[in-house]
Amino acid sequence: MRPTVWWQDDHVVMIDQRRLPAEEVYVECRTPQEVAEAIRSMVIRGAPAIGVAAAFGVVLGARPGNGALTSAELDAIDAALRSTRPTAVNLSWALDRMRRRAEALPPKADVRAELLGEALAIEEEDVASCRRIGELGAALLPDGVRVLTHCNAGALATAGYGTALGVVRSAAQAGKLLRVYADETRPYLQGARLTAWELVQDGIPTTLITDSMAGHMMARGEIDAVVVGADRIAANGDVANKIGTYTLAVVARENGIPFYVAAPVSTVDLATPTGAEIPIEERSPDEVTMHAGTRVAARGVDVRNPAFDVTPHRYVTAIVCERGVARAPYDASLRALATP
Amino acid sequence: MRPTVWWQDDHVVMIDQRRLPAEEVYVECRTPQEVAEAIRSMVIRGAPAIGVAAAFGVVLGARPGNGALTSAELDAIDAALRSTRPTAVNLSWALDRMRRRAEALPPKADVRAELLGEALAIEEEDVASCRRIGELGAALLPDGVRVLTHCNAGALATAGYGTALGVVRSAAQAGKLLRVYADETRPYLQGARLTAWELVQDGIPTTLITDSMAGHMMARGEIDAVVVGADRIAANGDVANKIGTYTLAVVARENGIPFYVAAPVSTVDLATPTGAEIPIEERSPDEVTMHAGTRVAARGVDVRNPAFDVTPHRYVTAIVCERGVARAPYDASLRALATP
Repeated sequence: MRPTVWWQDDHVVMIDQRRLPAEEVYVECRTPQEVAEAIRSMVIRGAPAIGVAAAFGVVLGARPGNGALTSAELDAIDAALRSTRPTAVNLSWALDRMRRRAEALPPKADVRAELLGEALAIEEEDVASCRRIGELGAALLPDGVRVLTHCNAGALATAGYGTALGVVRSAAQAGKLLRVYADETRPYLQGARLTAWELVQDGIPTTLITDSMAGHMMARGEIDAVVVGADRIAANGDVANKIGTYTLAVVARENGIPFYVAAPVSTVDLATPTGAEIPIEERSPDEVTMHAGTRVAARGVDVRNPAFDVTPHRYVTAIVCERGVARAPYDASLRALATP
Repeated sequence: MRPTVWWQDDHVVMIDQRRLPAEEVYVECRTPQEVAEAIRSMVIRGAPAIGVAAAFGVVLGARPGNGALTSAELDAIDAALRSTRPTAVNLSWALDRMRRRAEALPPKADVRAELLGEALAIEEEDVASCRRIGELGAALLPDGVRVLTHCNAGALATAGYGTALGVVRSAAQAGKLLRVYADETRPYLQGARLTAWELVQDGIPTTLITDSMAGHMMARGEIDAVVVGADRIAANGDVANKIGTYTLAVVARENGIPFYVAAPVSTVDLATPTGAEIPIEERSPDEVTMHAGTRVAARGVDVRNPAFDVTPHRYVTAIVCERGVARAPYDASLRALATP
């Protein structure tokens, strides 16, 4: 499998996730604005992948041969990219890191080369983080485990390997994974389209279900653990993730099933005290009313389409980061992991 | 709005619910086998509506002018209709009632006319039951209530007015309904296609959400009560209903939101001790993998498609029947309501 997003010669390439699994089409971006539009329109999605894409977007703002970016230029690049999606904090994290690097460059530096180095470091670190998250998460799972996952926290949502699917892949490699149950994840169907596509390619036994079947499977004893990614983790351990995650966490706890969140430290936002302060993106009603280009819902009905929800930390068994496994009380454990 | 299913001259007519809301197409059935096929293929669905359709199907088995149906003829008609869908008990209930009527007829009776009278009685009683369920259910709701419902337990699922949507309609008429949140109800989208269609026609403020958004809305304090229908209620109060209902009930209780089941007494099956004995229909994988005729899910993935789940009685605040409101302990309260 090719990576989700990468730097090629002088531009960024990403697989168009809107068209998977029907077609493998690649989109090239040559300006920060094109990267911003790719993020906004969900050519690329998934919190860590968005962070990597945004970092490359900053590189595109530095023209080859030119000198240092002015503060106003950096502001414009930053603003274009930062405004694309509000919930995933990895976007801000990557932009902050690129900004710090740009501002720390000596006067005669090759700005573009230096920023590219930083973006490539973010990309490499993300893959390495996913692999470590995979190892640490797989160690938490019993032999013969049947894992439920939601949305796509896989290679497509990261620079590679995946967070929740990194745990799944490591568990498969360790010979302890029996099966993955993948929620289709309405309305955007990241589970049916992306997670199923990734796992089938890897030869991992995967069963697709609708989101509303997950609770039934848990009650019937067919799920041993829930593993999901995250778009932002507040300082107290509250987790913003794809809409439907909260419901899974509640039903998992009701059935005594552990609920794990797998995410890099860059997803932990110590500046956001609790989940109540995390902005929840509301997307187009068309995602709910249209199916494969056809209007399915009755006309005249109102629509809500929040893209994320918040799972209070009391439902979270553990948060698996590349630096270790955080458990309650999360205020302390996350602060210890996330403080550089 | 025309009824869902009715007798016209010498045959049965039903609206084709597979094609709503895009088209209003009516299907005519002239044999018990055609009615059976209409039920199996979901031209008509909803437990009470299936019961009424099956009763008319029995009438179609009695040829005009012919004498009494033999026991073998009754067996054949019964078997064709009873095997169509396993979970909804109203189907068996209606067939048992028609059978008793057929067997009690005097030798020279006009069998077809007598059976038609019985089927029409079932139809009329169902509408009357729904209206009474609506009144009793609405009385349980506070002023300004925001109701969440799942699937379609409306006029389309009954001979008219609806069970859960009967409660909604009565609450609207009483001026106490602020808004209905309708789960789209994957995979068959009864909420997006049917519930939204019914409620928009009635001018009831309705917001469509995906199934996975319901928990988020509950946690945000945007839902005051959950009202759903039922396909079978066991003697102990366990409720089989559309897949996803169990999850709603768990999250509702977690958020202190009352969870009401609205169903006629014909849905109560005293012969089934608990939900564990209720057969759960598993339907075609295509319902999950195809959207509006287009394959959306990645190829090669396994699929599960249970059409119903079981909500244990401990999550059910009350069961609203036409004869009264049953509360825990349900063994006693349901037996009192359901015993003739």
